[in-house]
Amino acid sequence: MSAEMRREQIAEAVWRVIRRDGIAATSVRTVADEAGMSTGSLRHFFATQSELLVFAMELVVLRVEKRIAAIEFDPDMRCAIRQFADQFVPLDDDRREEMQVSIAFAAAAQTDSALTAVRDRTDQVLFDHFRQFVAALQNDGFLRSDAVVDVEAMRLHAVVDGLAVQGVNDSQRVNPAAIAQVLDAHFASMFRANGSSD
Amino acid sequence: MSAEMRREQIAEAVWRVIRRDGIAATSVRTVADEAGMSTGSLRHFFATQSELLVFAMELVVLRVEKRIAAIEFDPDMRCAIRQFADQFVPLDDDRREEMQVSIAFAAAAQTDSALTAVRDRTDQVLFDHFRQFVAALQNDGFLRSDAVVDVEAMRLHAVVDGLAVQGVNDSQRVNPAAIAQVLDAHFASMFRANGSSD
Repeated sequence: MSAEMRREQIAEAVWRVIRRDGIAATSVRTVADEAGMSTGSLRHFFATQSELLVFAMELVVLRVEKRIAAIEFDPDMRCAIRQFADQFVPLDDDRREEMQVSIAFAAAAQTDSALTAVRDRTDQVLFDHFRQFVAALQNDGFLRSDAVVDVEAMRLHAVVDGLAVQGVNDSQRVNPAAIAQVLDAHFASMFRANGSSD
Repeated sequence: MSAEMRREQIAEAVWRVIRRDGIAATSVRTVADEAGMSTGSLRHFFATQSELLVFAMELVVLRVEKRIAAIEFDPDMRCAIRQFADQFVPLDDDRREEMQVSIAFAAAAQTDSALTAVRDRTDQVLFDHFRQFVAALQNDGFLRSDAVVDVEAMRLHAVVDGLAVQGVNDSQRVNPAAIAQVLDAHFASMFRANGSSD
């Protein structure tokens, strides 16, 4: 097994420890146990808990990017922006688990400067993507005439982040069908009605 | 000083420790240090870290409820719902600090069942309030004709939660003026245009 694959397996062990016991429970020892390796071998890859957490947080982002790279985006930007937004809400178990881990990392980033840097970079990239999609919508004449690109990008980013948190916290009420309904209504509120000049 | 006031002072010490060092750093010892009392005196009020955290989390909710109870709500439901939503986004330092602590508690609630119970109760109460406001808007004829009360309540809850997280994470970009613009646009997307039958 390559070193890169081994590192990914270790990161997945970090995620499992975080989901089960919380981020405070992650240490070189608990992660080594979870990954079925000795602390000595684990330290060969990650010397400290901090390195381990930064890598595990960055790998969440890489996984999402990989999923996005595999999407065949619809040429209609109204469909494409929805395909993109769908990657950041808990529509299936993989995404729900991803978001559980992300919530833990985001909270830890409030007081851990190495994680703050990862979080800030990630948030900025995500907002920039939303902004580009919204600008493309405007360019293609799909946005309501009174819409402001920056405001709509921030509003969409907020809805998506809020649904992610609520879909993790209360997966019964904020289930995949409800999430889809909320996104349907949200995009309808952004898009110009068919044939309308508004 | 009454026991109740003493307990509130201790909870505020918990919040300061959480904001500075994270929830993992809260213990009877660190909170006693922060509150300027002996661990023995603190244990008189809270025997365990878990009791301390549950009380400190519940006190965040009580503070918000107290602030809401003091609001003189506008009889126009379009204004009243905005006054209510404004209580849950970081428009000033008090609310930003409140939300920092709430984010830490929400993450910890993923793996701490005592905190999960507080979080679930709080989320449900907040959603119910949003739902009541949206139902009142519909009742007063202010909602767009194609709007579904449950969906709009969930959508508003998501925008508010997303803005809270982003306003804490990136207070430069998601500043109070930007938050107000996003909420303006959001409520405009919910309300029937003046004189319109839509």
